[in-house]
Amino acid sequence: MSNPTNAAPPILLSIAGFDPSCGAGTAADLKTFAAHGCYGVAAITALTVQNTQSVEDVHNTPAATLRAQLEVLARDVEIAAVKIGMLGNRGNAVVVGEFLDAHKFAHVVLDPLMKSSTGTELLDAGGVKYIATELMKRASVVTPNVAEAEILTGLAIKELADMEAAARKLVEMGARAVIIKGGHMERPVDVLFDGNEVVTLGSDRVKIENTHGTGCTFASALAAQLAAGRPFSEAAMLAKAYVTKAIEKSYPVGKGRLPLDHFYRLKIEPPARGLHEVPQHGMHPAAEPAAH
Amino acid sequence: MSNPTNAAPPILLSIAGFDPSCGAGTAADLKTFAAHGCYGVAAITALTVQNTQSVEDVHNTPAATLRAQLEVLARDVEIAAVKIGMLGNRGNAVVVGEFLDAHKFAHVVLDPLMKSSTGTELLDAGGVKYIATELMKRASVVTPNVAEAEILTGLAIKELADMEAAARKLVEMGARAVIIKGGHMERPVDVLFDGNEVVTLGSDRVKIENTHGTGCTFASALAAQLAAGRPFSEAAMLAKAYVTKAIEKSYPVGKGRLPLDHFYRLKIEPPARGLHEVPQHGMHPAAEPAAH
Repeated sequence: MSNPTNAAPPILLSIAGFDPSCGAGTAADLKTFAAHGCYGVAAITALTVQNTQSVEDVHNTPAATLRAQLEVLARDVEIAAVKIGMLGNRGNAVVVGEFLDAHKFAHVVLDPLMKSSTGTELLDAGGVKYIATELMKRASVVTPNVAEAEILTGLAIKELADMEAAARKLVEMGARAVIIKGGHMERPVDVLFDGNEVVTLGSDRVKIENTHGTGCTFASALAAQLAAGRPFSEAAMLAKAYVTKAIEKSYPVGKGRLPLDHFYRLKIEPPARGLHEVPQHGMHPAAEPAAH
Repeated sequence: MSNPTNAAPPILLSIAGFDPSCGAGTAADLKTFAAHGCYGVAAITALTVQNTQSVEDVHNTPAATLRAQLEVLARDVEIAAVKIGMLGNRGNAVVVGEFLDAHKFAHVVLDPLMKSSTGTELLDAGGVKYIATELMKRASVVTPNVAEAEILTGLAIKELADMEAAARKLVEMGARAVIIKGGHMERPVDVLFDGNEVVTLGSDRVKIENTHGTGCTFASALAAQLAAGRPFSEAAMLAKAYVTKAIEKSYPVGKGRLPLDHFYRLKIEPPARGLHEVPQHGMHPAAEPAAH
């Protein structure tokens, strides 16, 4: 009955917390993997009590249960890339560090998540320290936002030059490659540094507001692009283009910060009805059909 | 930045256990919802330690945490349909029963999951009893497989007539509508009964083998079709057609029972190369391109 002629897709592992509203965390990762034609598997680091408005409570998974989830997957499937998000506490961060040591994965994207979009702490101080001193050096690429980069480096980041300095410091601290996400900055740019060259990825209108799950989505898309064999800066550009469009297509779901549409690519957009409605560039939201 | 012109999709709630291999449970539900153009949200009843080969361990979510996940969602989003899968134990089944009483949902699909495809118990005896006496009557439709229907009714099911008798008994016990899934029977048919008319849904070659997550997928597709306003038997036929094709497209992922391809609809199939390779009916797997 089963069809062995269906080709095996790349298998990507999400290590993250579960958000019941499914805008962030495990569900955002799995949707992003699927949208990139990959098969997602996942180990859950925490069950959050969360909707689009706030994170009301966090139940970190016991370390032994997290380890068991990771090992049961590693025994069964060939993992092409790993995306690490919310870890919750030092105990779970250590489990992940040991897992990375035991299995040599080709691509490990570490999103050093410390707070939710709505401000709730999602990692204890011991976990932050373990990321800075141990986990970063085990990743292929680390993707902090500005606030996380400030905490990891101890540097204040006010402008682009500060982002570059922080990126260089993260590489000095052991990161192989860094992307500092400046989506909330006045001029929303991302800074890439792989130890050789600083690259700035910008766009004129991609300031991130009123959404959640953008960091998870970017890191997961990056993992998918790296697993597909793209070089670092190209993978980052494609991941940024994906998350930008998914933000533009965010859904009116819930009363708070909107979830993205991870599957926007799979939908047919209505045609523009007049020249004045034609998108001016690739990142313009689709024109609405004219009313009749 | 966010795009309020993107229409709100129907929001469907999965209440289920999490399978790290993502072939069954929460992830299968969310993928099915997405494949039907719906937005999925989810409350996790248990973290399982599971791959495609077996369920090695089960950690049921504490009842208070399950309740908190459900309530945080109900306060935030309008739920068009609920799909209930693995409950784990009586405590969590009672939480779900109380949740259904507190919120009147238009469509509730109850998949009374008792064992994994590989034979592990996923519900305690108290939970089975609560489903039989309390939860079934709070659902729009109950979707047991043959083994579950035997346990719920106390009847032995050997052939089609037994399936019909069990369906009638489940309605006597309080179910509003029943689908008994006979995918593992010698003649693989499903029996539908809504209190009025028994309908048999068959196909000549859809015997389910060597996959996992088919029950979760069927129930989730059914919830999506009911939320879209389809009448019961039409919704069941469409859900069966979806799961059948997703089984045919199951992936060679893992060393055990294959996960389905929930997104097969979104992929372009290779064209058939000769008349003898043209599918003979709608449920035939796609012909392979001829080798050159």
